[in-house]
Amino acid sequence: MKTSSIESISEGTVTSPRGFHAGVTCASIKPKNVEKPDLGILYSSEPCVVAGMFTKNKVKSGPVVISQQRVKNGRACAIVANSGCANACLGEQGLTDASEMTELVAKNLGIDVEDVLVASTGVIGRPLPMENIRKGIGEIVLSEDGGHDMARAIMTTDTVSKEIAISVNDGTNQYTIGGIAKGSGMIHPDMATMLCFITTDIKINHLLLKKALEEAVDISLNMISVDGDTSPSDTTIIMANGMAGSVPIQEDSAEDIVFQRALNHVCIYLAKAIARDGEGATKLIEINVNGAVDETEARQAARMIVNSPLIKSAIYGCDPNWGRIIGALGRSGVAMEESKLDLDMGGYAVVRGGVPAEYDEEDVVEVLKQDYVTITINLNLDTGSATAWGCDLTEEYVVINSQYTT
Amino acid sequence: MKTSSIESISEGTVTSPRGFHAGVTCASIKPKNVEKPDLGILYSSEPCVVAGMFTKNKVKSGPVVISQQRVKNGRACAIVANSGCANACLGEQGLTDASEMTELVAKNLGIDVEDVLVASTGVIGRPLPMENIRKGIGEIVLSEDGGHDMARAIMTTDTVSKEIAISVNDGTNQYTIGGIAKGSGMIHPDMATMLCFITTDIKINHLLLKKALEEAVDISLNMISVDGDTSPSDTTIIMANGMAGSVPIQEDSAEDIVFQRALNHVCIYLAKAIARDGEGATKLIEINVNGAVDETEARQAARMIVNSPLIKSAIYGCDPNWGRIIGALGRSGVAMEESKLDLDMGGYAVVRGGVPAEYDEEDVVEVLKQDYVTITINLNLDTGSATAWGCDLTEEYVVINSQYTT
Repeated sequence: MKTSSIESISEGTVTSPRGFHAGVTCASIKPKNVEKPDLGILYSSEPCVVAGMFTKNKVKSGPVVISQQRVKNGRACAIVANSGCANACLGEQGLTDASEMTELVAKNLGIDVEDVLVASTGVIGRPLPMENIRKGIGEIVLSEDGGHDMARAIMTTDTVSKEIAISVNDGTNQYTIGGIAKGSGMIHPDMATMLCFITTDIKINHLLLKKALEEAVDISLNMISVDGDTSPSDTTIIMANGMAGSVPIQEDSAEDIVFQRALNHVCIYLAKAIARDGEGATKLIEINVNGAVDETEARQAARMIVNSPLIKSAIYGCDPNWGRIIGALGRSGVAMEESKLDLDMGGYAVVRGGVPAEYDEEDVVEVLKQDYVTITINLNLDTGSATAWGCDLTEEYVVINSQYTT
Repeated sequence: MKTSSIESISEGTVTSPRGFHAGVTCASIKPKNVEKPDLGILYSSEPCVVAGMFTKNKVKSGPVVISQQRVKNGRACAIVANSGCANACLGEQGLTDASEMTELVAKNLGIDVEDVLVASTGVIGRPLPMENIRKGIGEIVLSEDGGHDMARAIMTTDTVSKEIAISVNDGTNQYTIGGIAKGSGMIHPDMATMLCFITTDIKINHLLLKKALEEAVDISLNMISVDGDTSPSDTTIIMANGMAGSVPIQEDSAEDIVFQRALNHVCIYLAKAIARDGEGATKLIEINVNGAVDETEARQAARMIVNSPLIKSAIYGCDPNWGRIIGALGRSGVAMEESKLDLDMGGYAVVRGGVPAEYDEEDVVEVLKQDYVTITINLNLDTGSATAWGCDLTEEYVVINSQYTT
């Protein structure tokens, strides 16, 4: 009998798996923040199997168009990414500039241009300062602990960098998964985050990696919302360089099951980190919906609730206004019977059978004062369940977003 | 050749049409605002033909369940309405209390209980203080200019009452349409407003009145958004007592066309008044979408844009961040080609053919500083067009909604 284990790596990041390197520079792409890194390269010394998921927005940035095309090859060696400018809504110019970024990196690293992916995040509709980028790419020095810098280089309104790495033993292989993400506003569960890069040294084939990424993103980055908006830039890429194993893991094997669990862990961690750092947020909100007719409806209800400005404002104010939660549930369109509804805030039963339960309002207010608020709904119809994460809506969100480009 | 005219009535309201009376009282339903009227009755001395539209939320308040049932009769004489308590999420108790309100009014006015409709708005999940309501209904005195008081009695977080009346001459009949509405938060275009009562003395049959109301609401109250949330209480009722004519107007006649135009005018006026008074709002935002493949897609795009917190925040801050508008358009799912997109803010061309146009950013900032901001998109695909209205998102919205029940 093999045993498996998943362990956190202290200060782990996207360069924790074997063979991954990263480096960044300040290319003055962010006009007001010239001292901050805003351009970076993530590179694997061995060619990687890759999979990617991209925005479902019909408006796609130049970098998304190019990376979406190239991940179909199933292999890559590097990602070049910048913050401060999304390189979106710029027509041909956007494609040309994104393409040139990959050419510069390919030339510098001596690799095939088709093996370089690209991602940009920031203001829409302004062209990239290509002179700065050309100069910047030449200055970047890669290192084995460059992941922390890379996590910072992709931040826009994020207040903290989002990084994780875990060490996995599946009984046969000992490998590492690392990840970084950025995202703070324009976050909605119709793909994922803004940018998320995941690395691993596991040996795995392209189709299995793609399937695992889709499953993990579906229950993590696809279940968070900050403000209901998606962007033309949303990109999640996973790169696996195989340096930790000699034989690729097989579909539905014990090793595959452990890998999926480990990848889910990484993606949920990063998703919650994004939600918690939502623009202006003071709290992470977790919405659990149980007892729906199926998982699809549970997801639909959880996402509708986590996205309601009224609920988000009430939780910010520690106001136990559960009527708004029932209202959002009713609007979500899922099958429900009002007389069967149960609702808990924190550990407290607030609604039972569709009517107010006996509870002490002060207890519930105390629950809402915490920085991690859990709301659980039971529709009591069947076994469908899902979890979504979001954040409260504060004055600060408005302040940030009323002064973004100007 | 007959000529028709529609004229505003100065200080017109819901009791401007012949035969309508209203009265209100302070029943202390709003705990913190005991000095404000919160209970009112709208009454026609002649029986009315009625039509109504109600929330599509699966959670419906007691008053909605009862009124929705009774408008099917096609006739009514009175509406009793209160603010401060929505009488929602209370199971059987909600139905019993709403029913009792109509019984008390029927008894006082000497009319059939089936001819009394009921509407409540306010906090969800708290029972109505029925002792206060019983006492209050007995105190109400009806008068021919009671409409202004009635408009105030249904307000919750509204800062101004919403009232209108117009005088219509269709060449054959001279009649009046009046209306009041309340709504400030929890406003979304999946029905309409919170409460809207429209009166007219035109002579019209039930089916034609119903059709006219649906058409008018579809392009007005169904095209506004404050925060994307609907409530269990949304109710729009129109009452026509026929006192201005002897012969009912006929479908598709010249008179019918004038009536539809007049009713549209009233509903659009009230819809814009609600959007302008959105919780915390400082500006009315109008989104015009032209050139869509059909009207349905134009509506879908306009509603998606007007509901985006990122766009609403940017407009509040007079930030010409048009990338967010293109982003919301791309997320709306409508057919589009990025290279055909045109976008104007105020009178200024900002995007042409999907890329930034030549414009002076300061001009656009000036446009955004006004209290009525118009944004026009042309998809340049076909002739589908639609207009939606909303408001900016401000710190004040968060303040209001973080402290509503407590």
